Amino acid sequence: MKDETREKLMDVSVATLATALYKRGLRSQVVQGANPLGWKGKNMVGPAYTLRYMPAREDRNQLVEFRNPEHPQRVAIEQCPAGHVLVMDSRKSAAAASAGDILITRLMKRGGAGIVTDGGFRDAAVIAELDIPAYHTRPSSPTNLTLNEAIGINEPIGCGDAPVFPGDVIVGDADCVIVIPQDIADEVADEAVEMTAYEDFVVERVKDGESIIGLYPCTKDEHRAAFEDWRKERGR
Amino acid sequence: MKDETREKLMDVSVATLATALYKRGLRSQVVQGANPLGWKGKNMVGPAYTLRYMPAREDRNQLVEFRNPEHPQRVAIEQCPAGHVLVMDSRKSAAAASAGDILITRLMKRGGAGIVTDGGFRDAAVIAELDIPAYHTRPSSPTNLTLNEAIGINEPIGCGDAPVFPGDVIVGDADCVIVIPQDIADEVADEAVEMTAYEDFVVERVKDGESIIGLYPCTKDEHRAAFEDWRKERGR
Amino acid sequence: MKDETREKLMDVSVATLATALYKRGLRSQVVQGANPLGWKGKNMVGPAYTLRYMPAREDRNQLVEFRNPEHPQRVAIEQCPAGHVLVMDSRKSAAAASAGDILITRLMKRGGAGIVTDGGFRDAAVIAELDIPAYHTRPSSPTNLTLNEAIGINEPIGCGDAPVFPGDVIVGDADCVIVIPQDIADEVADEAVEMTAYEDFVVERVKDGESIIGLYPCTKDEHRAAFEDWRKERGR
Amino acid sequence: MKDETREKLMDVSVATLATALYKRGLRSQVVQGANPLGWKGKNMVGPAYTLRYMPAREDRNQLVEFRNPEHPQRVAIEQCPAGHVLVMDSRKSAAAASAGDILITRLMKRGGAGIVTDGGFRDAAVIAELDIPAYHTRPSSPTNLTLNEAIGINEPIGCGDAPVFPGDVIVGDADCVIVIPQDIADEVADEAVEMTAYEDFVVERVKDGESIIGLYPCTKDEHRAAFEDWRKERGR
Amino acid sequence: MKDETREKLMDVSVATLATALYKRGLRSQVVQGANPLGWKGKNMVGPAYTLRYMPAREDRNQLVEFRNPEHPQRVAIEQCPAGHVLVMDSRKSAAAASAGDILITRLMKRGGAGIVTDGGFRDAAVIAELDIPAYHTRPSSPTNLTLNEAIGINEPIGCGDAPVFPGDVIVGDADCVIVIPQDIADEVADEAVEMTAYEDFVVERVKDGESIIGLYPCTKDEHRAAFEDWRKERGR
Amino acid sequence: MKDETREKLMDVSVATLATALYKRGLRSQVVQGANPLGWKGKNMVGPAYTLRYMPAREDRNQLVEFRNPEHPQRVAIEQCPAGHVLVMDSRKSAAAASAGDILITRLMKRGGAGIVTDGGFRDAAVIAELDIPAYHTRPSSPTNLTLNEAIGINEPIGCGDAPVFPGDVIVGDADCVIVIPQDIADEVADEAVEMTAYEDFVVERVKDGESIIGLYPCTKDEHRAAFEDWRKERGR
Repeated sequence: MKDETREKLMDVSVATLATALYKRGLRSQVVQGANPLGWKGKNMVGPAYTLRYMPAREDRNQLVEFRNPEHPQRVAIEQCPAGHVLVMDSRKSAAAASAGDILITRLMKRGGAGIVTDGGFRDAAVIAELDIPAYHTRPSSPTNLTLNEAIGINEPIGCGDAPVFPGDVIVGDADCVIVIPQDIADEVADEAVEMTAYEDFVVERVKDGESIIGLYPCTKDEHRAAFEDWRKERGR
Repeated sequence: MKDETREKLMDVSVATLATALYKRGLRSQVVQGANPLGWKGKNMVGPAYTLRYMPAREDRNQLVEFRNPEHPQRVAIEQCPAGHVLVMDSRKSAAAASAGDILITRLMKRGGAGIVTDGGFRDAAVIAELDIPAYHTRPSSPTNLTLNEAIGINEPIGCGDAPVFPGDVIVGDADCVIVIPQDIADEVADEAVEMTAYEDFVVERVKDGESIIGLYPCTKDEHRAAFEDWRKERGR
Repeated sequence: MKDETREKLMDVSVATLATALYKRGLRSQVVQGANPLGWKGKNMVGPAYTLRYMPAREDRNQLVEFRNPEHPQRVAIEQCPAGHVLVMDSRKSAAAASAGDILITRLMKRGGAGIVTDGGFRDAAVIAELDIPAYHTRPSSPTNLTLNEAIGINEPIGCGDAPVFPGDVIVGDADCVIVIPQDIADEVADEAVEMTAYEDFVVERVKDGESIIGLYPCTKDEHRAAFEDWRKERGR
Repeated sequence: MKDETREKLMDVSVATLATALYKRGLRSQVVQGANPLGWKGKNMVGPAYTLRYMPAREDRNQLVEFRNPEHPQRVAIEQCPAGHVLVMDSRKSAAAASAGDILITRLMKRGGAGIVTDGGFRDAAVIAELDIPAYHTRPSSPTNLTLNEAIGINEPIGCGDAPVFPGDVIVGDADCVIVIPQDIADEVADEAVEMTAYEDFVVERVKDGESIIGLYPCTKDEHRAAFEDWRKERGR
Repeated sequence: MKDETREKLMDVSVATLATALYKRGLRSQVVQGANPLGWKGKNMVGPAYTLRYMPAREDRNQLVEFRNPEHPQRVAIEQCPAGHVLVMDSRKSAAAASAGDILITRLMKRGGAGIVTDGGFRDAAVIAELDIPAYHTRPSSPTNLTLNEAIGINEPIGCGDAPVFPGDVIVGDADCVIVIPQDIADEVADEAVEMTAYEDFVVERVKDGESIIGLYPCTKDEHRAAFEDWRKERGR
Repeated sequence: MKDETREKLMDVSVATLATALYKRGLRSQVVQGANPLGWKGKNMVGPAYTLRYMPAREDRNQLVEFRNPEHPQRVAIEQCPAGHVLVMDSRKSAAAASAGDILITRLMKRGGAGIVTDGGFRDAAVIAELDIPAYHTRPSSPTNLTLNEAIGINEPIGCGDAPVFPGDVIVGDADCVIVIPQDIADEVADEAVEMTAYEDFVVERVKDGESIIGLYPCTKDEHRAAFEDWRKERGR
């Protein structure tokens, strides 16, 4: 992902990106059910670094396991590269926590770009105040050992029924999270910027009373021309 | 619906209306799972104008379909009469969006009284700021074409397991949305106003330390008399 | 529950308590799906007083039933001892309300320490403003008679898949609700206070850039020593 | 329940009974999701004897608990009166077993008329061969202690979202199970016998090519007359 | 649909058809959750004739409604053309019946090619013995009025999340039901016959010990040649 | 796993094994929801060989992918060692097939001991006739590419919420499937044989009219003595 791609993705919506991916035949890239935990006013953008959970077997998942410095959950937090988003496959269950405030604080300090689970976080009210984007399905206080064992780091995973490959570009906005295949991230970002410009133009027109027919999507030449003028005026 | 009915319904709760309908044998009129997207401080009230979605077949639901000026989703937005609530049967799935901010802005400009889906809206954070009531189950960024095809306008539909006939009176408050059969809307509104007066009286009494037994519901003459006095004092 | 136990439980998190119970082999004590309805800034703590609902049979659940001064829902509200938390087994369904603002106002006036359901409350926006903690899964306007009949007072119940015995200590924080078996409440509170002190220490360290490996959980002597110093400094 | 009521209920379908109850305003009496485990060719009929499960707390639900002669699951099996149906509220979860072949064999030997759960049975293939009707949602091998604790005997319960009061008349056929309130069991049985006669007549007519319009339900005098003749011929 | 298309579709599997549709970009044509009710040994094939249910409103759905000769459920049974499959959108709920044995017997007599619902049938054990294919999700005894009102005949609908347009070709086998868009039914049938021949050849080879790599799908010339010989031998 | 362990596990039930594992603190080893597809009269026993699916991304999952001889689904079938059970993590969804008859026939020919998925199989009716045990949740005709991409071979996985490590011993009976951690398989098999002997004795006694109290579990010396005699008589 180019630096300017990251910047572009900071200013577009997940909805616009979903449409751009849809044009390319990709229909299932939104992480279903994950919403922001304390929306912090700007998008989350970064390559995916993944953690996979499997069902916990009781003999392998006593609290003492966390004392192991090689425990994958802890290792993932310590190894997720700066600027990356940690994406967790929690098997779509929030019956136990995917992580809590201490680990997410550590990820924040290490420069993590954000964290996503298709389960839930404990200490959610604290995480909502941290300066790192976080997305989950609902607060969940039980320790993850109750339900899940962290078993694989940086493997291809599913998260909220979306496929996630390490390095895919993850974007979260005030609503949802989306996964952009890494090899098309630059072009998708470019296209989304273009689409966003047109959508901003459309919103202005609609607020001025224009009908959406012929305007959104654009099928009338007059709107196309007006949009070009609008862009020039605004330098977009 | 008489004009004064609309006014009355602006000041009663969906819970009170649900009880008034329950008295008439109607148990399933609340739209299950739909909650307000940015509560805007006053009720949504208006006759239902409906849109029905069916599962999307891929060959019929490419982005180009939106270029068709007859596309039912767009037509519904442009034809929903002012003062009406657009109610969408999204088959109880928020896996893709029922609508987004541009269409809902257009509906707002056209005088729509509100919008309801048993799925989710994209651009939810933007919609939460618009000056039109909106109710859904959760934010959902994928375009509706991914999942659903708009197929029927102003037909009887289901929404969140509630039956909705065109013209039924839709009321939304800070919690939920309810469907009042149109032919009883006036009498139900009258009754709800009466019930609300009594409930307001009860809340005052309970805050003063009164027991609910005999007071709510009213089975003691002393409360009935006190309520009459209370109404006179307040001109209700 | 000793008075100081109540005080201790006001200052610890449900997540910490869940871990303390997990150490004792108790994995299922969090009420799944119940979140605070208007977080009021301090924990809910109190012994459980329970109400059990069964499916409503229509002939037994007409509105007139509420006129019966012995109706269990009303009786539970009037008999829940001051300082107790009313916990409702609503069979994990929010399709109808477990209670509404009038009953919860009454409970508040009677000194109830809080109310929990694995269903939903009607008048949720009003309840969110009351000075009593309340936890549910989502707002739900239909009267409870539609779905549920209150049938048992102060029996052992399930709530959100957690076992609840009368007298168990219920704690709710900004995220979730947990059930502490009454005979271990004092020791669990003590342990949670200790754990909270260490967690607070850890958060400070992590914010200063420390790795979590060896720190959380503590496996290095240097952290143990530093923690002891930290406690002395702060008098904890 | 009169002896002849039991006999009548042996020869009518749950579908017919559901319609007879529907006429009386009772819509929720079928145990949702429970189907026969090895249909044994004749209906299950008997008054309900109930067992209620709550979520299992680990410290109370070790295998040793079964050694307690007062364990409610075992007591229920030993005390369920002959001719009664044991109905279990397993909280609609088949993640662990409600009972297994040994207990159900014992119930059979004691003269139990059948067993119903809204969860699942272990040893299901064996139970399917026993000479006692059994209804569940799916086979489930884990011991019930994993999930559920038997807590209440012969209380009002829910089973598959149907309300069950001790003594209600339980009927199961090749499809489903229904709960008939005990005070109307005799009249409902009478009516169902009448309905069954007419339905048998209808099936013959339909097989002979008759349209259902006017025949089912009967709105034409000619069908009414033909039915009377048909009854006389067959002595029904 | 040509007559020979119907014949071809009698001899191919739904799995093969699903793959043929998948090649054309159609991924959602299988009716999710519907399985045969008493597999009758040969495929169900016919154009779709549809019935749409909406949630039942109590005042419109008393038993007396069935006396109306225009009731859409009865009309659909009487008007479904011979050779067609009646497909019902029951909103994916089997909590009440979509139809029962009398109506399905009538449909059989009228020459219906089969019946499909994404809910459940009452009198399921009887229907399993009728000489007409039927597909549902599970037996369900309550009358449909409890839950659903038949509202639309021969409209585009959803059934088990599959899109169904009147006239689409419906095929059911021992496992599942699939919806083939009518304009491609002939070509899909042709292709499926071809695929079936190859699959039959593959099964023989695999039973003889051949590896699937290079054989299924065919990527080796030797298999292609052997298949051609095989076809000639068998005249397929 | 010793050879005699395999033999022992052929003659015990999954229910008995679940109880033996429960004694060791393992509560979640049964594959939830998977039932036999055509019970073939004897247990499935073998070490686990695993396949993990992730959500399918459309560009990576066109039919052409199967032409790749390295496709993990095909490779798993070709590499699963003889005597092993292929266990598939299909993310608990049967919306598309985990495998079909051709692949399972190949696995059978290669000596596979069985196949398990927490999704569904296509060609289920054919598979039910094959001479290899197969367990799934329901028939599902769509090709797996619609939903899932095979991504990992012989990794630790979840299957029906049970943890599965390669080499764990998988046992299936007429009801369910269970996962025995490999290092305790021998001792668990021994214990299950003992338990089965006692259960067989109990069944005989119960059929003779004995109460279960004191007999199951055994808390009376008389039963213990009688059991010893019973074993001697039968040589067990």
